[in-house]
Amino acid sequence: MQQDERNLGMLMDFYEMTMSYGYFEKHVNTDRVAFDVFFRKNPDGGGFAIFAGLEQIIDYLENIHFDESDIEYFRSLGFFSERFLHFLGKFKFTGDVYAFKEGSIMYPNEPVITIVAPLIDAQLIETAVLAMMNHQSLIATKANRIVRAAKGRIVSDFGARRAHNADAAVYGARASYIGGCQSTATVLASKMFNIPVSGTMAHSWVMYHDSEYDAFKAYAELYPDECVFLIDTYDVMNSGLPNAIKVAKEILEPRGCRLKGVRLDSGDLAYLAKGARKILDDADLTDCKIIASNSLDEYTIMSLLNQGGPIDVFGVGERMITAKSDPVFGAVYKIAATERKGQWKPCIKVSESVEKITNPGLKHVYRVYSDEGKAIAELLTLAGEMPRNGEPYSYVDPEKPWRQLQFANCTFKNMQELVVENGKRVGPSPSLEEIRRYVVDQLTNEIWEEEQRFENPHKHYLDMSLDYYGMKIKLLEEMGAKTV
Amino acid sequence: MQQDERNLGMLMDFYEMTMSYGYFEKHVNTDRVAFDVFFRKNPDGGGFAIFAGLEQIIDYLENIHFDESDIEYFRSLGFFSERFLHFLGKFKFTGDVYAFKEGSIMYPNEPVITIVAPLIDAQLIETAVLAMMNHQSLIATKANRIVRAAKGRIVSDFGARRAHNADAAVYGARASYIGGCQSTATVLASKMFNIPVSGTMAHSWVMYHDSEYDAFKAYAELYPDECVFLIDTYDVMNSGLPNAIKVAKEILEPRGCRLKGVRLDSGDLAYLAKGARKILDDADLTDCKIIASNSLDEYTIMSLLNQGGPIDVFGVGERMITAKSDPVFGAVYKIAATERKGQWKPCIKVSESVEKITNPGLKHVYRVYSDEGKAIAELLTLAGEMPRNGEPYSYVDPEKPWRQLQFANCTFKNMQELVVENGKRVGPSPSLEEIRRYVVDQLTNEIWEEEQRFENPHKHYLDMSLDYYGMKIKLLEEMGAKTV
Repeated sequence: MQQDERNLGMLMDFYEMTMSYGYFEKHVNTDRVAFDVFFRKNPDGGGFAIFAGLEQIIDYLENIHFDESDIEYFRSLGFFSERFLHFLGKFKFTGDVYAFKEGSIMYPNEPVITIVAPLIDAQLIETAVLAMMNHQSLIATKANRIVRAAKGRIVSDFGARRAHNADAAVYGARASYIGGCQSTATVLASKMFNIPVSGTMAHSWVMYHDSEYDAFKAYAELYPDECVFLIDTYDVMNSGLPNAIKVAKEILEPRGCRLKGVRLDSGDLAYLAKGARKILDDADLTDCKIIASNSLDEYTIMSLLNQGGPIDVFGVGERMITAKSDPVFGAVYKIAATERKGQWKPCIKVSESVEKITNPGLKHVYRVYSDEGKAIAELLTLAGEMPRNGEPYSYVDPEKPWRQLQFANCTFKNMQELVVENGKRVGPSPSLEEIRRYVVDQLTNEIWEEEQRFENPHKHYLDMSLDYYGMKIKLLEEMGAKTV
Repeated sequence: MQQDERNLGMLMDFYEMTMSYGYFEKHVNTDRVAFDVFFRKNPDGGGFAIFAGLEQIIDYLENIHFDESDIEYFRSLGFFSERFLHFLGKFKFTGDVYAFKEGSIMYPNEPVITIVAPLIDAQLIETAVLAMMNHQSLIATKANRIVRAAKGRIVSDFGARRAHNADAAVYGARASYIGGCQSTATVLASKMFNIPVSGTMAHSWVMYHDSEYDAFKAYAELYPDECVFLIDTYDVMNSGLPNAIKVAKEILEPRGCRLKGVRLDSGDLAYLAKGARKILDDADLTDCKIIASNSLDEYTIMSLLNQGGPIDVFGVGERMITAKSDPVFGAVYKIAATERKGQWKPCIKVSESVEKITNPGLKHVYRVYSDEGKAIAELLTLAGEMPRNGEPYSYVDPEKPWRQLQFANCTFKNMQELVVENGKRVGPSPSLEEIRRYVVDQLTNEIWEEEQRFENPHKHYLDMSLDYYGMKIKLLEEMGAKTV
């Protein structure tokens, strides 16, 4: 089922059109090319990122086309031939896509997605593929940091109003759920992706009523089973909390209901939570949860917990939905190889910046596991190389290529799988719940704790097979560039 | 014309539904309320922000509804009565909206939009209105900073791939055009909003061809009138630039065409631009522009220009389209007054944080101009107060209320105008070009230069009429809160 009915075919950079027209006029669109999608730096100085957005990328690729108004727009630019416009009118994506499972832990400089497609097909999809992967991976990674900081307490997405418009709210909610949030406040995201929805009252509910007490009472009468009161509209300790407790005693308890929670949205959250906890406990409301919100992220949550703030649920908004501390996820889309008369030839970009040198050619990326099942490194090989589980395997760390290195007693998992073949989805997609569980499984069982800490996490190595490294160095030498 | 055909009725926080159901069950939806939309802090420590997104807000309000699948979703939650679901199925927005002109310079804590509507109508639109205003105002404000840093040089939006998904790319392009960008690379934004589109080639074009020279030659033969070459794929000074000049001489000049530009996308942009400029000039290509891109923002552009980097065009991507340095625009939606039996009563939120105290009541916001036409302050008054142009006017600075202050020889402009009445748009909207020009007009003629600088800009005051200030203090006293 396509969850978003828009055709995002036009979500592209104009250079994709100028280049595609060039390829079209040169009659080279029967040639295939391979493009790799990879990123260069983990957000927030973390040890890894989480791959999200694949489901939307596949939807997009299956549905991309140009309608009459699109063609009319292109015609109006006066740039392209009618033959090319006719070609665009019939365009469908016909390539193959290999990708990591959605929800995979991923590391810098490894090809997370590889597109193998006719030249124009591969070129036209660059921007949309990147925007979808970059956005959801950014938010999933950030949400997961926040969820880890909360150490088992519930985190809910409250971010829609500060998101960078509707898609950022909706797909951000999806990504934050993948990252480990338990619910979203965003109704459209809940409807589209079947994410649990949460929400109670705003300050306006309290302010609309003649008094805070009246506001809580009216809410309690309507939702006796789901009562969470926002207690900071006027004064938490002298008004909000006493009114909440009064309504719990007068309205809820006589009906056999309990006050589910109180929410703090301003002020010193640690101090107020401690005070509120004591007063709630003294009023025999030990089961009443304390929910905190107000510009939270992984650092404020760690600080609140370090101070002993008895907070049960974190409502996280702007700093998660914009990934405020590091809001750019920089996956790029780089040509890796071209096919001429059935022969694949690797391409490399040398560039002015060493860190922008690409990993060329058709390749495999393996995750290497120790005999304890821990992911100890990534391994790039030539396409077709298949390391054997358990057997000694010599490899190169490209940052220290002079050292002899060997994997022993390791298993190797080929990380990419075919997800689109000839433009059509291959097999069923995992459910959002499965993707979310997969994140937890990897972090619990496979990924070293040392890679999960926030400060100076362990660096996960991207190693290379001897043949792959040799091919890259040979290409660089041919380019006349110095190797790094 | 509605530019975006989606119905974003479901783009809301769930608490809007729980509260609305409460109001519905209490039969209070014939009461009207007034909500103010305002923000608290200029992004990046700047002196002002730019209001953008109004056109999309009006579109949204004219089109909001809930379709059958929406109702079915709400039914599935088991929370709401069938009567309420029936009400939602017929729901249309029937309120009035007052707003600043789109493109207005705006300042913290003034009501930029005021919604006067039946309770539920006003409540259900909160999240979407905020998300649209927050996103576009964020990007327009950021883009304007970057454009000001470029001091008359061209700035173009290259950001789609790093935007927070499709809407952020498309509406971000619109907002960056309002902020002063001259073009966008995003095709869908160009099509939807008639923004000039720009784009030439990616590194993949160069890498696909057998050599850089072949790549430039193929491009020049196809687009002799629009040749801009990306010259950093292998080596700017030793390969990219010599090949560009060779193709200019061999292919373009014999056809009477000129090389329009060369683009640098990595490395030391100031150094490379200087070197490239000299070599281009020596080759008699003084009219060839130098275009720079690669993680630019207002600070890197100022630095490049301070170093004398001879750059003519800046392609700005991730740091503009995400407003990387300060990616949260925090406009809020706060109830200001409620109507009971035809009488309006002001509401105030006191809260635990002083800076979160709201400005209550129905009100006007005037921009106060000196006799030289400079905007010297904002003035909040009670609704109906009309300061007379040129006449002395006593007012209060609420941060220093003990001082006697008077405007002399000033004119007063009521900043809000009615843009939606009974749910329908009032009058034609300005075109995007008009909005963009309005920004330039204000910054050129009305807004002090001292407010436009990046470091410690002059603070624009939000003053109050004596009657308005008196009303606010009286309300605070009634609340038993200390005044600030």
